[in-house]
Amino acid sequence: MSRNVAQKLIESHLVAGRMDPGDEIALKIDQTLTQDATGTLVMLELEAAGLDRVRTELSAQYVDHNLVQDDFRNADDHVFLRSACQRYGLWFSRPGNGVSHPVHMERFGVPGKSLLGSDSHTPASGALGMLAIGAGGLEVALAMAGLPFHVRMPKIWGIRLTGTLPDWVSAKDVILEMLRRHGVKGGVGCIFEYFGDGLACLSAMDRHVIANMGAELGATTSVFPSDEAVRQFMQTQQRGDEWREILADTDAAYDEQDEIDLSRLEPLIACPSSPGNVVPVHEVAGREIYQTYIGSSANPGLRDFAVPAMMVDGRQIDNRVSFDVNPTSRQILENLVELGFLGKLIHAGARIHQAGCNGCIGMGQAPATGRISLRTVPRNFPGRSGTREDQVYLCSPETAAASALLGVITDPRTLPMKYPRFSEPKTVRVNTSMMQPPPPAGTTATLEKGPNIQPLPDFDPLPDELECPVLLKVGDNISTDEIMPAGMQVLPYRSNIPAISQFVFRDVDKDYVKRTDEHQHRPSIIVAGENYGQGSSREHAALAPRYLGLRVVIAVSFARIHWHNLVNFGILPLIFTDARDLESIELGDILVLPELRTCVTKRQPIEVTHQRTGERLKVKHQLSDRQAEVILAGSLLTVVRRKLLHDSPI
Amino acid sequence: MSRNVAQKLIESHLVAGRMDPGDEIALKIDQTLTQDATGTLVMLELEAAGLDRVRTELSAQYVDHNLVQDDFRNADDHVFLRSACQRYGLWFSRPGNGVSHPVHMERFGVPGKSLLGSDSHTPASGALGMLAIGAGGLEVALAMAGLPFHVRMPKIWGIRLTGTLPDWVSAKDVILEMLRRHGVKGGVGCIFEYFGDGLACLSAMDRHVIANMGAELGATTSVFPSDEAVRQFMQTQQRGDEWREILADTDAAYDEQDEIDLSRLEPLIACPSSPGNVVPVHEVAGREIYQTYIGSSANPGLRDFAVPAMMVDGRQIDNRVSFDVNPTSRQILENLVELGFLGKLIHAGARIHQAGCNGCIGMGQAPATGRISLRTVPRNFPGRSGTREDQVYLCSPETAAASALLGVITDPRTLPMKYPRFSEPKTVRVNTSMMQPPPPAGTTATLEKGPNIQPLPDFDPLPDELECPVLLKVGDNISTDEIMPAGMQVLPYRSNIPAISQFVFRDVDKDYVKRTDEHQHRPSIIVAGENYGQGSSREHAALAPRYLGLRVVIAVSFARIHWHNLVNFGILPLIFTDARDLESIELGDILVLPELRTCVTKRQPIEVTHQRTGERLKVKHQLSDRQAEVILAGSLLTVVRRKLLHDSPI
Repeated sequence: MSRNVAQKLIESHLVAGRMDPGDEIALKIDQTLTQDATGTLVMLELEAAGLDRVRTELSAQYVDHNLVQDDFRNADDHVFLRSACQRYGLWFSRPGNGVSHPVHMERFGVPGKSLLGSDSHTPASGALGMLAIGAGGLEVALAMAGLPFHVRMPKIWGIRLTGTLPDWVSAKDVILEMLRRHGVKGGVGCIFEYFGDGLACLSAMDRHVIANMGAELGATTSVFPSDEAVRQFMQTQQRGDEWREILADTDAAYDEQDEIDLSRLEPLIACPSSPGNVVPVHEVAGREIYQTYIGSSANPGLRDFAVPAMMVDGRQIDNRVSFDVNPTSRQILENLVELGFLGKLIHAGARIHQAGCNGCIGMGQAPATGRISLRTVPRNFPGRSGTREDQVYLCSPETAAASALLGVITDPRTLPMKYPRFSEPKTVRVNTSMMQPPPPAGTTATLEKGPNIQPLPDFDPLPDELECPVLLKVGDNISTDEIMPAGMQVLPYRSNIPAISQFVFRDVDKDYVKRTDEHQHRPSIIVAGENYGQGSSREHAALAPRYLGLRVVIAVSFARIHWHNLVNFGILPLIFTDARDLESIELGDILVLPELRTCVTKRQPIEVTHQRTGERLKVKHQLSDRQAEVILAGSLLTVVRRKLLHDSPI
Repeated sequence: MSRNVAQKLIESHLVAGRMDPGDEIALKIDQTLTQDATGTLVMLELEAAGLDRVRTELSAQYVDHNLVQDDFRNADDHVFLRSACQRYGLWFSRPGNGVSHPVHMERFGVPGKSLLGSDSHTPASGALGMLAIGAGGLEVALAMAGLPFHVRMPKIWGIRLTGTLPDWVSAKDVILEMLRRHGVKGGVGCIFEYFGDGLACLSAMDRHVIANMGAELGATTSVFPSDEAVRQFMQTQQRGDEWREILADTDAAYDEQDEIDLSRLEPLIACPSSPGNVVPVHEVAGREIYQTYIGSSANPGLRDFAVPAMMVDGRQIDNRVSFDVNPTSRQILENLVELGFLGKLIHAGARIHQAGCNGCIGMGQAPATGRISLRTVPRNFPGRSGTREDQVYLCSPETAAASALLGVITDPRTLPMKYPRFSEPKTVRVNTSMMQPPPPAGTTATLEKGPNIQPLPDFDPLPDELECPVLLKVGDNISTDEIMPAGMQVLPYRSNIPAISQFVFRDVDKDYVKRTDEHQHRPSIIVAGENYGQGSSREHAALAPRYLGLRVVIAVSFARIHWHNLVNFGILPLIFTDARDLESIELGDILVLPELRTCVTKRQPIEVTHQRTGERLKVKHQLSDRQAEVILAGSLLTVVRRKLLHDSPI
């Protein structure tokens, strides 16, 4: 039977289940990726599970998020992660070595392999013809322990690319066009597979840009074929021998299909405050800006810095603009120096920051109040920049650099200059020295824990009946950034659940935590609209509310990764049978959920009694048997620990 | 009469007073320097004073301290400072353009000029034969308004340098030797003037290292002659025409004298947690380190990065070490790129940060708990790094780089390599484009204030009678750190007196602010023991309590600088005639102070009625006529504004 690339990748890793869209399947995981903001918790989970050494082909731990060291906390985490890599046999990418996704692709990406990462942008490696999926840290921890990863078989969307990108239009505009067409929920339950003649004008790193921001469409992942462009990339990375070709069969079919004529694209921009608010740049041109930000995993390639460098060469950025340049990795930085691009950027007025995620995740570089920041990053959710009243626009490096020169949002096609087209060099400097390899098996190493690194809280089993208050009611599209803010104030507490829980819903409802305190962290409920938990995969968005007593979320619909995270930490995600029931529920209402354990086990709908109105609402769950067991036990960690204890198959 | 350099500089700026050590003198100020952490308040003071345009030859505002933008506050301050420079006619050095002291020396330093700066390391420009002094923000604001600066005539120490620095020993070791000999109070009330044949081996930037850390000796300032090395420096900076020679007369004398034979120096290091804890590096060699930090105003020169770059060239730093490189300025960074040094540093494992103060003032880069950080910065006071239990050592770039390579504190002389001696290039890239010049006189500009930037409170005149409560009673040696705490939590509010006032006496009496609120910020009193207001010169320690209603402090005695600050912000400092009277006063007691204006004007003691006991206490003030006028008016700013309004001599 003929297969597309996605199907080939899934089939070759299928451990259980059938490849029918919507059915749960289990996948063998070859590689894992963790970053520091999620990784400390993963390591604590490995410790709690009693694992001896990772069982994947390769696991890599990156330090790219929490690089601003305000006090001992982040530095202690870095020391802890290094020791954990020695303890459990992982590669350690040191602070300042760069952003996980492009570095992983450069150093470890192999066509045909599967990769599970505790970061929502993990799908970026789909650019190489990998099956790369983002998940919560706990699921990645289990993959490290050799367990398969469970996911519902996605629908496969085939996106045919035709034509060639015009001058001043680049890969970022392709994914912005996808977001313009399909919105931030358009990819939920889907894999986007790109194919067609248009691929010829996209390098592997260009494809990374597109695959990376597939996360913003809500997609399970995005995949590209492993073709000549991938071969060239791996050759350049001095790993040509690891390349293999993976193409869709000629008569491969897709569940859905769409087509983009690249030659008809124009510079696009996502307006505040959603990656889905996409318009042509010329529609918003002329607005005065405070900042231009180049970098992040959404525009990590050498060309994403080289093109702006050529654009500003011999010029000066407008004197109102903070021109923040965030090199992707030590390697990219070395090549920018070597090829003369860094000097051009500095001379034009760039503020050069250390290699890492930095302002993309609110780690510094917050814009001034109410002023416009143009960023090549993947996300512009409200407040993610660190400034609550921010005005963040997402765009290509070309649009960003043009706007930096003029001090106002600028369609780069209007600049009086020739498009400085970039040709990828055949060879680049490859720097592997800041990747510390795992020690040989049998090496002993001790976990080095600073005072801010606290053990995980306990997880009690699901009671049979819950009678508890609604302590928060929210609308549609609540992101995990809103549930569990990131930024410099919060991120240092990622290894300390009691401390980080104090920030839950800070910018949505500052009294939420107080209410949970007054309720003494006893069971409580949140009700929500559509797409609850979109965005980042951070499991703290489940774990911290759970610490505060959250046991049930009833929503119109859920974002995939967060739904999994809720289950894994013992929070029951329920869906309104009739979405209109949401309206009748108010903050403080008491809901009674009877016979929960039975309903969960038997996959029955749950009849909720609304104490104030006396009404009965029907809600349902979509748990598999495996997930039902997790919810009943109180957390996935409880299940795993129990099974390890009895040495039974997990 | 023959003069040394310091005397020549003072004499040429003397407006009032005699050059007898200890006598108050008034100096004409040619240039001012402000940085962002102190500058916002200075600009608010200019606004309150009603100044139209600065009256100095040149005033420059730098943004180098608060570069990590974790929310809108720092970014808003940058925008505000830019607008204030346009409003009042200052040069604006944009965020990322570098550390004030070396940039000022490169761009504006002129031998023979006087410079007053609201930063304690302002004396660094003494390297050029300038009279450069650090002071509180209000004093710098007044200098901007054209007023002379008052200071007690210092003693002049002559430090004769002989011989030549051996391999692996550099300027930092010279100032560490001074600290080893004289300690952190050894320079109080003094100017250090360096002279002798040994100067020949010290470039102007090397001398900056020494003059900069004269602040750590407590010196009023340090000066060097303006000789051939200075001429070369100014030539390299493309300002050779502004050079002029300033040498001590051949038979010049000094109040005190010392001598250092440079050829006998060895690598030195200041151990935690004082710049005065200096020992030879070999005494502490072998201790495992967490971090090596290169940069700051204490080692800002091209050579301070170039020598480490040559040392690590083709090598890798130890994999336990965070190797943080903080370029001094955009210009240094450009030259490091141009000359190939940056690439070597990156390749060896450096984390490259934006040009600025960064970790030197605790803005990121805090070390892990209890682990050793080796820094080329000027200070290692406990917790200044951001980590309360820090272990910060101060050393030369040579010692820092050697230790980074081996992962333990290392005497660089023990490395198996030839000393990579650096020759200053005859020409360097000079980048002035990020210095925004003042607009032409007559240009109108509006101050752009974000929501965290609040105007200074009003300062009403002293009433003739006060009948008000004692809202705090404290003991001896209360420091300005106790009155107005610093730290990351508090500093972002430095432009917002109402907000920062909420932290007043936080760690002494957490209810003090509440009591002032309940009293509706009406006039109130503090009574205190000896040495009230010791420590840091921060003017917020007077300004914020004044906002809360404080009008009188009655103490057994006062620390000098805080006493001045109290007067400047209209808080009457009074002294018990009988120290035992302090005992009889309790929190909440009402004191009546009659005929205040008359007593202040006529230098009479004040008879205070103690309402609860009915007793009368005698208290006295020690105000000069000039200071009496300030207290009566309500603040020094009120006086200045009044004089500006009537265009009378200030």
